Amino acid sequence: MDDTVLLGHGSGGTMMKRIIDEVFFEAYAGESLLRGNDAAVLAPASEAKPSAEALAYSGSLSFSTDSFVVDPHFFPGGDIGRLAVCGTVNDVATAGAEPRYLSCGFILEEGFSMDDLRRICTSMAEAAREAGVEIVTGDTKVVNRGHGDGIYINTSGVGYGYAGIDLGGEKCAPGDKVLVTGTMGDHGITIMSCRESLSFAADIESDAAPLNHLIAEVIEAAPDVRCFRDPTRGGLASTLNELAAQSGTDMTIEEDAVPVKPAVLGACEMLGYDVFQVANEGKMVCVVPAGQAEAALAAMRANPYGKDAAIIGEVSAMQPERGPKVFLRTAFGSTRILDMLVGEQLPRIC
Amino acid sequence: MDDTVLLGHGSGGTMMKRIIDEVFFEAYAGESLLRGNDAAVLAPASEAKPSAEALAYSGSLSFSTDSFVVDPHFFPGGDIGRLAVCGTVNDVATAGAEPRYLSCGFILEEGFSMDDLRRICTSMAEAAREAGVEIVTGDTKVVNRGHGDGIYINTSGVGYGYAGIDLGGEKCAPGDKVLVTGTMGDHGITIMSCRESLSFAADIESDAAPLNHLIAEVIEAAPDVRCFRDPTRGGLASTLNELAAQSGTDMTIEEDAVPVKPAVLGACEMLGYDVFQVANEGKMVCVVPAGQAEAALAAMRANPYGKDAAIIGEVSAMQPERGPKVFLRTAFGSTRILDMLVGEQLPRIC
Repeated sequence: MDDTVLLGHGSGGTMMKRIIDEVFFEAYAGESLLRGNDAAVLAPASEAKPSAEALAYSGSLSFSTDSFVVDPHFFPGGDIGRLAVCGTVNDVATAGAEPRYLSCGFILEEGFSMDDLRRICTSMAEAAREAGVEIVTGDTKVVNRGHGDGIYINTSGVGYGYAGIDLGGEKCAPGDKVLVTGTMGDHGITIMSCRESLSFAADIESDAAPLNHLIAEVIEAAPDVRCFRDPTRGGLASTLNELAAQSGTDMTIEEDAVPVKPAVLGACEMLGYDVFQVANEGKMVCVVPAGQAEAALAAMRANPYGKDAAIIGEVSAMQPERGPKVFLRTAFGSTRILDMLVGEQLPRIC
Repeated sequence: MDDTVLLGHGSGGTMMKRIIDEVFFEAYAGESLLRGNDAAVLAPASEAKPSAEALAYSGSLSFSTDSFVVDPHFFPGGDIGRLAVCGTVNDVATAGAEPRYLSCGFILEEGFSMDDLRRICTSMAEAAREAGVEIVTGDTKVVNRGHGDGIYINTSGVGYGYAGIDLGGEKCAPGDKVLVTGTMGDHGITIMSCRESLSFAADIESDAAPLNHLIAEVIEAAPDVRCFRDPTRGGLASTLNELAAQSGTDMTIEEDAVPVKPAVLGACEMLGYDVFQVANEGKMVCVVPAGQAEAALAAMRANPYGKDAAIIGEVSAMQPERGPKVFLRTAFGSTRILDMLVGEQLPRIC
């Protein structure tokens, strides 16, 4: 096998067959991929069984897509492959669905290391196993040297919707509680410190993780949950502003209640970043009616990816003349507006 | 609105909201996309009605993905946006399914023209309308100047499978007829002549087209059809070799029977290309039992995208000691082996 990616690996001919057989099939081929057709055939939801015993499938589908261009490709806590699987798994799950199938589209740059590609594919396979999803269809393109950045990955995902569950940012209502499943800012600060070789960040790592099982557990415990949203690019602040705008509400967050690792907070202070605008890749914001907030919190904390979960604030009625706003009540008791990220804080975080 | 793509358009913040609202929503927003959640919710097949009246949905799904990196972005007969919609629509349809939903992932390079992006989105919307599919979920990443090539697009597609139809390359059997839905080589030669500014190619244009309706019509007319496969990268030769390998058969093609436009043939001869290895983007290879071949041919020819359809050869038993082979019987009566493309003929054709 060749040591680096060559243009011929995207040709549709014998070299492409070789990279498919020796790299992709080797890492993660299941029955559907091995059949070798241009599209995968997926079983109807009615013939499949949810992994969460108390939940049933409705027959509806959840469908989402994400491209990954993170720089660097490997970082503490993960790599572009783990990110590509977890990111789409999490988006599919936010619709109140169990992710089952992924597609994988590679855009490789001529000269990319075949060993790195194998390492990334192995990482994708591991993340897919953990999430319980199967990579069933794929595509590989190769671009000339100087027209890419080693590797870009797109994953799209299909999941089966849970019966009786209808989630969406527009459902947040005054009185609801706002929760996060863990500490904020880990992924963004990890990437930044990798890129800048910052030594103070030695004990920070990306939180990239599949949260579909955690989401199913919260749905079981708090069936009236309004929505899940993963605070990736733009961080917690942008996600909360999106939810407030979708639902026409205000939200107030208690700064002290938001879990942040001391090392992440230190890095943010030193670099002048607002930790609430820094990206996460293994966390969910979740809005729940007040009466089910404690049950949702307990379900989160029972999952290893939710052990630092917290209730961080609540939803209130919007003042119509001012439009939907998100407020942050600081440790000193003052209140400031928590704005959406303007411009670009840190490009190519995912 | 900004004239070019900036890093901030991929930030997850307010600039990203602006490009989504003003470019993507403007071009192709339907109800699902406008809801603004991270995943689209799709209706179960049982609640949807096939557009082909004589066909019913089985409940199974077809799922496929493709990334598009074509250079140049605009060419006679199409552009990267039309290609991105048609390519995935066609792959989903080859499973014997009606494509219904597309995702769209953009990787934009800082500095890409916003007008070109709008033009590409409009073209995607038009192709989606023609195919009868809806773009329901999307993602946008922006990479720094010098790390992309203006625009790369991934589309993934979900379709509903037709009841009683099970297609696959492995089903080809001795005695079956091999058909193509039209002329070979148009897309590849168009891209090449654009890139090289070849004047003799003035009357050649890409065949990029959605073939899902044509496929449904062939399935209605010839319900025992074995498979469809679109001869994109690697052309007819690579596709036939794939089908022969999957089914463990030989195939023999009559050179005279394969429709090729004189201008395309002339360009291939001048440039030393084998037209059977040149990419197509709006054609299907189709294998049908002999008894249904005429019915399939008539159905193809009744569709505007199949007016030049032809029966080009047949499947025969493989000689076990030699493995599956594809033969080309030339106009002079001699026979040669038609090989899969080796190496890369023409990078970034799609």
